[in-house]
Formats: sequence, structure tokens, C-alpha cells
Amino acid sequence: MPNKVIRHAEDYKPGEVFDLGTYDVTREELVEFALKYDPFPFHLDDEAARSTMFGSIIASGWLTALVWLRLMHRGCFCVETTLGSPGHEEMKWPSPVRPGDRLHGRAEVTESRISKSRLGIGFVRYTATLMNQDAELVFQTTSTLIVKSRSAAK
Amino acid sequence: MPNKVIRHAEDYKPGEVFDLGTYDVTREELVEFALKYDPFPFHLDDEAARSTMFGSIIASGWLTALVWLRLMHRGCFCVETTLGSPGHEEMKWPSPVRPGDRLHGRAEVTESRISKSRLGIGFVRYTATLMNQDAELVFQTTSTLIVKSRSAAK
Repeated sequence: MPNKVIRHAEDYKPGEVFDLGTYDVTREELVEFALKYDPFPFHLDDEAARSTMFGSIIASGWLTALVWLRLMHRGCFCVETTLGSPGHEEMKWPSPVRPGDRLHGRAEVTESRISKSRLGIGFVRYTATLMNQDAELVFQTTSTLIVKSRSAAK
Repeated sequence: MPNKVIRHAEDYKPGEVFDLGTYDVTREELVEFALKYDPFPFHLDDEAARSTMFGSIIASGWLTALVWLRLMHRGCFCVETTLGSPGHEEMKWPSPVRPGDRLHGRAEVTESRISKSRLGIGFVRYTATLMNQDAELVFQTTSTLIVKSRSAAK
């Protein structure tokens, strides 16, 4: 699915799938992020992580979410028409992300409708996932985008 | 509520409130974050934002989430006993965050229980918010922490 075409709310159809490509998580990025935003010992230090259920250092779930966000910008969001989001209905981290993991993103449109009360916008609901190289689900989220409709473009 | 005491799952009681203090959002941090993770025009450029419903540049909701995360580390999380989270049930951005906003965080425990199937851990569910200086809600999330129980400490 090409990303660089202009897509209005009407162009997103339920069942449509966006392959978001892959992202390689490095130990450096993982530790740098945790130091800045989420300094739990098991995000920072293998020795500390060894005594937890994780066994070795794992990524902050928030870095995992931002990896997904970057992939959405690369492979799904249309910046010309997208006006943000009111929030996320769910955000799950079923398996941990570790240094060296290659994460593969996918987003599927589940609903698309034009606003009845606000002229010129629509709502595009989707569920997105990240899988690791062993086909384990490491991230899942469901959210809604606010997207300009064709009537706004006239 | 002091942060630096060791708190096990049993120590979190429904109704308990954590005042997370405040965080000042700067234009520099807002733009730097958006460039790196979430490059929508309305996070980067006042001119582009003027033509949207936002009127001027606003923060990525993901930066708002990370402001909240930092405040949780400062005022709520016990790093000695907390073992992460399976995810978030909801994450809402009801009002935008703008450069210069002072955000005030609050977290309230809604549920606390000891796992029946996994020895030595409990689950602490909470709802947290960020309000701006005009008492507008800019962030709300509900999630569950995995926390060591006293039995794990024996």
C-alpha cells in the first residue's frame, strides 16, 4: 500500500491492511531511552534484569510504542490529512522486546466513518501490531485517527 | 505520599492518591520529540498548525504520555518492587498540550490484588491524569502494574 498518496477519511476501508515494515531495536537506543524516560533497573542493566522474570534487559514498553509510531509515519499516516487522535483504547505489551530484536509492524483499518457533527472530518479506527523475528506479538494497540474528509478538500 | 519507601503490592490501597507534581513543557522539547518520533506538521510548525483546528503548535500526545511517565517515576513507581505492566486499558488526550504549559500529575489506585497463580506478585490498577495550568484535562490513562508482593520478599 503506497504511503505517499493523499488519503482522505473516505479512502480508508475496513479490512485494509498496511504493512509497516521493520525496525531493528539496538541496546544503545533501548538504554538511552530508559535513562531519559523510564529508568526501571530491568530496562538499564542486565545484572538487575537477571533477578526478574525477564532474565535479561528488556525495552521500555514506551520505546516499543514509539518504534510502532515511527513505522506508522513511514508506512501508514498521511501527514497532509491526519489531524491527530483522541487517544488509544488499548495498548498491550504481551511479550518483552530485547536488544537486537527486529520488529515488524502491521495496521488494519477496522472502521471508517464521516463525522455527522463536525464538517470536513472523519474517524478511522484501526488495530496495529508489532511482531518480533520469532513471530511473537510484542505490541498491540487500537486507536482512532481524525482525518480530513473529501468535503474538507473542496 | 513519600516515594522512596519500599512498597509491595499489599501496600497499595484502593482510593490512595499520588500527587505527581508538575512538569513544564518547552517548545524545544516539543519540537525535538516530534522531529524524532512523531513528525506531523502541527507538532513542528506554527504556520502549519494555524490551518488546523489546533490554531498553533501542539505537543505529540506521546510526549505528553512520557511527561506523565517521568512524573510517575518521580512520585509513584517503586523501582525496587515494580516489574512492569502488561499494558494500558485506555490512554486519552482530551485537550492539546502547548509550549509553556505546566502539567500537574495525579494517580489514584483503583484495585490491588495478589496473584493466585503466580507466586510472589500482585497487580495494582490505577487511573492517572495530567491537568494543565487552566485545570483542563490533557491526559488520562488506566493501567495495571505488576508489583512484588511481601511473600516474594521473604
